[in-house]
Amino acid sequence: MEKRIITISREYGAGGLPVGRMVAEKLGIPFYDKKLVEHVAEESGFAPKFIEEHGEHSPSGSMFSYAFAPQGVPGVMNGLSTSDYLWNVQCNVILQLAEKGPCVIVGRCASELLKGSNVLSVFIYADEQDCAARVMQRNQLNEHEAAKRIKHVDRMRKKYFACYADSEWGQPESYDLMLSSSKFGIDGCVELILGSLAQMKGEASVE
Amino acid sequence: MEKRIITISREYGAGGLPVGRMVAEKLGIPFYDKKLVEHVAEESGFAPKFIEEHGEHSPSGSMFSYAFAPQGVPGVMNGLSTSDYLWNVQCNVILQLAEKGPCVIVGRCASELLKGSNVLSVFIYADEQDCAARVMQRNQLNEHEAAKRIKHVDRMRKKYFACYADSEWGQPESYDLMLSSSKFGIDGCVELILGSLAQMKGEASVE
Repeated sequence: MEKRIITISREYGAGGLPVGRMVAEKLGIPFYDKKLVEHVAEESGFAPKFIEEHGEHSPSGSMFSYAFAPQGVPGVMNGLSTSDYLWNVQCNVILQLAEKGPCVIVGRCASELLKGSNVLSVFIYADEQDCAARVMQRNQLNEHEAAKRIKHVDRMRKKYFACYADSEWGQPESYDLMLSSSKFGIDGCVELILGSLAQMKGEASVE
Repeated sequence: MEKRIITISREYGAGGLPVGRMVAEKLGIPFYDKKLVEHVAEESGFAPKFIEEHGEHSPSGSMFSYAFAPQGVPGVMNGLSTSDYLWNVQCNVILQLAEKGPCVIVGRCASELLKGSNVLSVFIYADEQDCAARVMQRNQLNEHEAAKRIKHVDRMRKKYFACYADSEWGQPESYDLMLSSSKFGIDGCVELILGSLAQMKGEASVE
């Protein structure tokens, strides 16, 4: 089976994270999500917790967003907002990871950044009730809290994408393959992604 | 391989029609597009050419849309507009076809009509330049004419869907599987659809 770079974007609660992890495991290639965040943290001097919270949030536009200069890295932000600075660092990290070889990258606009290169760009979505059920169980929330959290996170992802991408989050133009985990389940999505690698046309493998 | 009902929605010029035809051929099941139109024509008394042109167009809302009562079927429209009358007839035809057994149905909001039943709902899309190239070749149009035609037809399909469906044309919520024919080609899309049938979870086959 060919090994390529696979980016996974996802609705909150749709299971994109376990799908990505399993695809990486099956292909025996690196999986980047929290790991990516740690890379970014190392490069930027930001605390990992701060990046995890702000890594997919759009610029607030307030003065507040300029307040968190990385500790011990005076002057490195060059007048950029926190979000813009983080975006620049993340771009470098993602491009470096892609250079290294095949991998799976979840979120962080990687699909947009690596567009046009030898990449399979996937979007995982699910019915509202399935997203809610997953978030309720995973995050120990009641139905109302889960729905609120899903709405908030997906809105933030959409806004983040709108700020830094030419196309739109969750729209076909931004992806090669879009899968409903409600229809196929996590395992089914994994199998379909693996199967789709062999169907990509006209591009040399990264291997 | 399991045989189910497969609905295919598509951007104009993305190749959804050949994809659907090849899937039906490979599965050895009926393919409905023009055939569906003929069924509708037989049931309604409308001329096939008229239905082909208006079958996925939204109600115009003008008096004009009430003007084309089917010949020889006086009074059957019961005060409905042409579009609403055609929609009702198409609903009946599609539901009857789905009752008969596995098949592939392209367009005509079939995905929406058969939602919740044992159906794989697919959307085929492509990059603008690929849609344009296909339409230029197929319809013998220049680049400008092709772009205009694509924009017009996709807008009509979107409006038609908005009139008769609870969800939105071209949006993930309306489909199970969305494929870029730019990434996978026509053959690749066919293979992925066939592969996805085995991954559908928790539903009995139509067979």
